[in-house]
Amino acid sequence: MTEKLLELLKDKKYKELKAELQEFNSVDLADFMDELPMDETLIIFRMMPKDVAVEVFSYISVERQKEIINSITDKEIKHIIDELFFDDMIDLLEEMPANVVKKILKNAKEEERILINHFLNYPDNSAGSIMTIEYVDLKKNMTVRQAIDHIKKIELDKETIYNCYITNPNRRLEGIISLRRLVTSNDDQLIEDIMNTDVIFASTHDDQEEVANLFKKYDLIALPVVDKENRLTGIITIDDIVDVIEDENTEDFEKMAGLQPSETEYLDTNIFSLAKHRIVWLLVLMISATFTGRIIQSYENILQSVVILAAFIPMLMDTGGNAGAQSSTLIIRGLALGEIKTKDFLRVIFKEFSISVLVGLSLATVNFIRILVFENVDIMIAFTVNLTLLVTVVTAKLVGGALPIVAIKFKVDPAIMASPLITTIVDAISLVVYFYLASLLLGL
Amino acid sequence: MTEKLLELLKDKKYKELKAELQEFNSVDLADFMDELPMDETLIIFRMMPKDVAVEVFSYISVERQKEIINSITDKEIKHIIDELFFDDMIDLLEEMPANVVKKILKNAKEEERILINHFLNYPDNSAGSIMTIEYVDLKKNMTVRQAIDHIKKIELDKETIYNCYITNPNRRLEGIISLRRLVTSNDDQLIEDIMNTDVIFASTHDDQEEVANLFKKYDLIALPVVDKENRLTGIITIDDIVDVIEDENTEDFEKMAGLQPSETEYLDTNIFSLAKHRIVWLLVLMISATFTGRIIQSYENILQSVVILAAFIPMLMDTGGNAGAQSSTLIIRGLALGEIKTKDFLRVIFKEFSISVLVGLSLATVNFIRILVFENVDIMIAFTVNLTLLVTVVTAKLVGGALPIVAIKFKVDPAIMASPLITTIVDAISLVVYFYLASLLLGL
Repeated sequence: MTEKLLELLKDKKYKELKAELQEFNSVDLADFMDELPMDETLIIFRMMPKDVAVEVFSYISVERQKEIINSITDKEIKHIIDELFFDDMIDLLEEMPANVVKKILKNAKEEERILINHFLNYPDNSAGSIMTIEYVDLKKNMTVRQAIDHIKKIELDKETIYNCYITNPNRRLEGIISLRRLVTSNDDQLIEDIMNTDVIFASTHDDQEEVANLFKKYDLIALPVVDKENRLTGIITIDDIVDVIEDENTEDFEKMAGLQPSETEYLDTNIFSLAKHRIVWLLVLMISATFTGRIIQSYENILQSVVILAAFIPMLMDTGGNAGAQSSTLIIRGLALGEIKTKDFLRVIFKEFSISVLVGLSLATVNFIRILVFENVDIMIAFTVNLTLLVTVVTAKLVGGALPIVAIKFKVDPAIMASPLITTIVDAISLVVYFYLASLLLGL
Repeated sequence: MTEKLLELLKDKKYKELKAELQEFNSVDLADFMDELPMDETLIIFRMMPKDVAVEVFSYISVERQKEIINSITDKEIKHIIDELFFDDMIDLLEEMPANVVKKILKNAKEEERILINHFLNYPDNSAGSIMTIEYVDLKKNMTVRQAIDHIKKIELDKETIYNCYITNPNRRLEGIISLRRLVTSNDDQLIEDIMNTDVIFASTHDDQEEVANLFKKYDLIALPVVDKENRLTGIITIDDIVDVIEDENTEDFEKMAGLQPSETEYLDTNIFSLAKHRIVWLLVLMISATFTGRIIQSYENILQSVVILAAFIPMLMDTGGNAGAQSSTLIIRGLALGEIKTKDFLRVIFKEFSISVLVGLSLATVNFIRILVFENVDIMIAFTVNLTLLVTVVTAKLVGGALPIVAIKFKVDPAIMASPLITTIVDAISLVVYFYLASLLLGL
């Protein structure tokens, strides 16, 4: 699709190129420009109509935005910040290095600079940090006709228009009305008679995850945000919430794999930063695993007399880790989606116990037969191994099911209670049981 | 908040209860009713105005919907299916057992029954299965005024109204116009002059994950869906896409933990079904782990002469598993979000190699010192253990980084290449290296 653009660019047929650009969507143009060398990106950037250029700019990768800001004139920067949606500009400023931020702020108007500084001070991942100030503000004594005329005048874009907010002279939120309702009402009806006063809203300092949960629960497309004095300060729109949902999921994936969450994309992160995010948990878990080593050491005499026992350790440890990870993953996910609550603790434990007996018995039976048939092993050793397997699976599923819920009670993120930690705990328990049963059943 | 409702219900003050119900949002009422005994749910259900009751019904849990349908009269059922949004009705029918579906279809109009059967035939997780037929259909020779009058007449709800679709007499999609654009245009402009003909759309058989990616890429709030003949058959709205995104994430979480994905919530699934979804991978991985056992068996003589070597096996296996899981998680997630492409293979491998050397050297150094200081172990054994640790971490991160991308090339879901499988592979490699180095360095 964009091959034609590339060809025209290579042949320097700029006039045709300019015409061709109009056929493309801003998102696709941004993708196209991300792949070009920087000087060609700039050629295209300057070839587009100014308002299109700004929209395309908002979709370009952060790296490229940085380079573009550094390459263009102050006048061009001024145009970008005048035209960019306020929330996109805040996103941009949060990503840029200090010198670029300075260059941008230098070109902003005084009052805008104050507002920007205010926004940049909202905590990371708060409602304030993802809201936009572009919204429709109505008064309750307006008629529908006046309201629609007002909307026509302020010319907002995107979905920020589909809900309009009614505020009193102190900017306190009094009601909400959808554009749908406005359009389908009679021209001379008063806003106050048709507005909805049962407004769902967030506060600037609410966590973005809670905000996303409100969107999911009430099927919202926009949500008003108020400050500590209950004054309307902005709105959050669904497109930003979709990003929040993916970010929160990424964070859970990372935590569950024993990674410290990172805000930047993998390919854009340097290896030192990536290494730093991985090493802490690996160190903690490595040192925890030495306890497991101590257990083996203290049963050295058993191992020395029946060395074959060592051969089953990896199978027991892996199966225990996997069985525990299955349970903890389901519970962590259920908690994150609100499908499981802390009050369900006993139900979860009972379910996991029943499942673990079913699964453990099946695995142990299959493995018992397999060992007897394919491996030249004493029947009592086979019995020891598979009884340990059953106990391991039951323990793993109980630990995996319980820890995430216990974590919430102690106000710890349940995502921490995932595979790596569960594996380490279950390994130790499994080995103690193994050697205990071995000494008991094999008379060692 | 809902305590008052509960009190009025217990005291049988139905008149006051009925008045109080009006103060509540449908979503909150549904939550409240889900917690009540079935007979009280029915009392409340019948107490609400008919249109509110249907909206509340659409938010109630599947289990409860089933019971309600089974308890109410045919006339009441008829009212529900007449008033329910079409996509909500399809969702309902997909969840209900055959006898309930029959009861519902019996009460539907002939033409509706045909349409329902058509919808129920769309493949699971296809665009067709999540679309709705409630949308605004305009003609290009209408004026803005005519269009708005048309919208007022058909009275649609929710976000299905914010984009209007222009079709020709053969129902082919010709353009799209937002309600915003309609409201802010002059009354006598022709739709064809202001509509956008560069329409992004999906086909009924497209996978819902691809559809969700279109929403994310282009910041959409609604997307038209066409059939094989390019005729407009429905639209998909953002609130359903939010659910799709969470479902797809849940599926990835499950696959990455060695679970077969399940469509039902944990607490609503019986233990046999839960056990079945877990046992397959546990069996496969348990049997794979026996290869690791074979490796240990074949080096039995080394183990017999230096039993202490066995004590470090859990630490090596756990660290290898964790290091691999970190890498595979980041790559799987990056692939899912489109941040990493298959063409980045070599970049990923290079990054993972550099990181693994950094991380592996750090871990091995810490562990070498720890062993020498705290454990009474020969320096050559400590060296063997920690050289193995370094090799294990490097191997784990290369395998974890490479396999998800390789999976895509073979058209396998990369989420399969997660912790459980990586752990099993890395365990085997790590042990071979361990015993090889031991025999070499310790002269065994």
